[in-house]
Amino acid sequence: MSAPPATPLGIGIAGLGTVGGGVMRLLAANAPLIAARAGRPLIVTAVSARDRARDRGFPLDHPTWHADPLDLVRDPRVDVVVELIGGAENPARALIEAALAAGKPVVTANKALLAQHGKSLAALAAAHDAPLAYEAAVAGGIPIIKTLREGLAGNQITAISGILNGTCNYILTTMRERGTPFADVLADAQRLGYAEADPSADIDGLDTAHKLAILAALAFGQPVDLAAVHVEGIRAIDALDIAYATELGYRIKLLGIARLIDGKIEARVHPTMLPAEAPLAMVEGVYNAVLAVGDQVGRVLLEGRGAGAGPTASAVAADLIDIARGRFTPVWGHDASASMTPTPPAPIGAHIGPYYLRLMVADQPGVIADITAGLRDNGVSLEAMLQRGRSRNAAVPVVLVTHETPEHAMRAAVSQIQKLPTVLEAPTVIRIEPG
Amino acid sequence: MSAPPATPLGIGIAGLGTVGGGVMRLLAANAPLIAARAGRPLIVTAVSARDRARDRGFPLDHPTWHADPLDLVRDPRVDVVVELIGGAENPARALIEAALAAGKPVVTANKALLAQHGKSLAALAAAHDAPLAYEAAVAGGIPIIKTLREGLAGNQITAISGILNGTCNYILTTMRERGTPFADVLADAQRLGYAEADPSADIDGLDTAHKLAILAALAFGQPVDLAAVHVEGIRAIDALDIAYATELGYRIKLLGIARLIDGKIEARVHPTMLPAEAPLAMVEGVYNAVLAVGDQVGRVLLEGRGAGAGPTASAVAADLIDIARGRFTPVWGHDASASMTPTPPAPIGAHIGPYYLRLMVADQPGVIADITAGLRDNGVSLEAMLQRGRSRNAAVPVVLVTHETPEHAMRAAVSQIQKLPTVLEAPTVIRIEPG
Repeated sequence: MSAPPATPLGIGIAGLGTVGGGVMRLLAANAPLIAARAGRPLIVTAVSARDRARDRGFPLDHPTWHADPLDLVRDPRVDVVVELIGGAENPARALIEAALAAGKPVVTANKALLAQHGKSLAALAAAHDAPLAYEAAVAGGIPIIKTLREGLAGNQITAISGILNGTCNYILTTMRERGTPFADVLADAQRLGYAEADPSADIDGLDTAHKLAILAALAFGQPVDLAAVHVEGIRAIDALDIAYATELGYRIKLLGIARLIDGKIEARVHPTMLPAEAPLAMVEGVYNAVLAVGDQVGRVLLEGRGAGAGPTASAVAADLIDIARGRFTPVWGHDASASMTPTPPAPIGAHIGPYYLRLMVADQPGVIADITAGLRDNGVSLEAMLQRGRSRNAAVPVVLVTHETPEHAMRAAVSQIQKLPTVLEAPTVIRIEPG
Repeated sequence: MSAPPATPLGIGIAGLGTVGGGVMRLLAANAPLIAARAGRPLIVTAVSARDRARDRGFPLDHPTWHADPLDLVRDPRVDVVVELIGGAENPARALIEAALAAGKPVVTANKALLAQHGKSLAALAAAHDAPLAYEAAVAGGIPIIKTLREGLAGNQITAISGILNGTCNYILTTMRERGTPFADVLADAQRLGYAEADPSADIDGLDTAHKLAILAALAFGQPVDLAAVHVEGIRAIDALDIAYATELGYRIKLLGIARLIDGKIEARVHPTMLPAEAPLAMVEGVYNAVLAVGDQVGRVLLEGRGAGAGPTASAVAADLIDIARGRFTPVWGHDASASMTPTPPAPIGAHIGPYYLRLMVADQPGVIADITAGLRDNGVSLEAMLQRGRSRNAAVPVVLVTHETPEHAMRAAVSQIQKLPTVLEAPTVIRIEPG
């Protein structure tokens, strides 16, 4: 309880890209304020990166340069290792494991590593009493890890959902605002630096799945098997779907959703139709947001920038200040020794909800009768149908919105319908959530 | 860094009203989960309230009953004192002072006490190395204290604004949705229990001012003098203003706003027109929300329930878990010994922004010329004017929206205009914010 000694906290940073540079700049810009909040100065004593010669726009005179990041662990002037290399395997993984094994606190922004190896890393951290902090791994500057691990710790979290990937949200927002196709917006996003040259991890949903697995681990007190997360990306979303969503009063967002349902954990990532006035529907562009539902607190929404040097560095700095103050929280928020009942995953087939279904059909008599028969045969009931375009030669869209339907019934209906000779393209199915 | 011992944390609760009862119920309902997150059981060992006989709907067999709340401080089985009595003076004040002086951690939901005596309480807490935790004092279940003190601690916060009073937000939301006058909605709110029998602290803005003073103290590292906060409530808001706001694309919200401007702290509470699509404009009913702007993180929004037994108990539980874990943060987030440059308050007259002005005028030739002359004489330029209703006998509304204007110029213009014989009622002036 007494004030910590005013000896500086020595920080070793591995990786000096966008985030590493942001952390260097933040610690320099706000040094007096951070020292007051941390109870002592935070000093970068050592760094390690691939290219020493590169001009990064900030001085590197004072910290010791280590060609091998593992030397940060061995450096006695490094009290905390900040891992900003990225990637689920070495050198990032070896660095974090070595630091924890040496009892050195670790701060990381590495969602892939935590989602894939979080269980063993948490055990290692617990065995060596070393903090493993990762605020920057999910939703950038939004303090969602602290909120779940500490701020809402009195609650049983029953559901968590979020817009966790700024690239996807930028693409979906821009498609809606400009009415342009997915491929064009993606190319623009790549030019602007909002999407990677290889955009797969973002647009196919894996990045969101990594972050969701971490949030679910915190919410439900146990690591979630990444393989049990149902993942769909946004490649199949057509400008037509965006336009129909608007017409029906919805917005399409790539959501990560995890819920406790009948003693099982449902975890899924997919494009989702949300009512236009739902809080998550109104989160636009590169912003991220997370909605948590607690049994005591009800709904809590956090929104902010999910990426970029400043927001991510803000999250790293918060973790460093916690460590400087000696504020310790176990990796998943509770003692590893506490017996948490393992909760099985719920299969996606057990999901129940309304669905949006878009079909491209030949404009022939009887086509609607065949489609609605396919739904009826599988017990799927309709809430709405839109069919307006007419064309003798080209495929015309038919849009259907169902009532609450079990996923397995919907899949059976779609499977039956897409075999019809009048259905000309693969159907688009989008789950609808109340928001 | 090592796990705390598994000895239970003994909790003494003073005040067993809505919030105290909520805390009792939460600790019972989520006991295993909380013990895992806190690293040890949280046990209510003693309580104190006015009426022992009253049926509160939960058992009081186990905790020791103290008629005098100060006995909680003297009780060796009480490790933490939870003050839920309320009010800025005794017995709440005496209880907190006695606990801190004895080095016992304090958890409180008492915004009035913190806003008025926070400076001396923080000094007392620092002198005795005792935590003073108050997550429940501002915005109920939203973890805004933790977010500002810890989550965004790497940032210089430059602005903070929020919807901090659920009663006012419920009234303004309902006035808009139903088109009903203020007095009718207030009466309804009182019947529903959303407003007190004496609603003054809520609707005249003092409750919001208390909460804003606490948030500003955290954001800017120093207590803000409550007397320097400009406070206006919502009594003067007419159904007409709500309707005009909607027509102009705005929503009216009671906001608390604190900003760093040219080395001064501007702190004000008043009805505010926000663009209808601004994040705070979309927070409706009894929800609270806080928007913080940090120099590194940019804008972060938190939204959730601002009152009620569950949300407030959730905040109290988070503070108790922090204390059980030994996670310590100084009252205003930094060491009392750290020299923070005192920042002077900015007078409201120095505020600059656009304004909404509604006048009730006699429908006579020349009236608009006189009004616009009053604005011109004081250097106020117009962005928009609405005048539609016509009536030979009754007053008709004229609505004007100005460009960016210094407050002192606006006041001079309004003072000149309201002396016109054709201006029949006191003008309504509402500041417009970009959101």
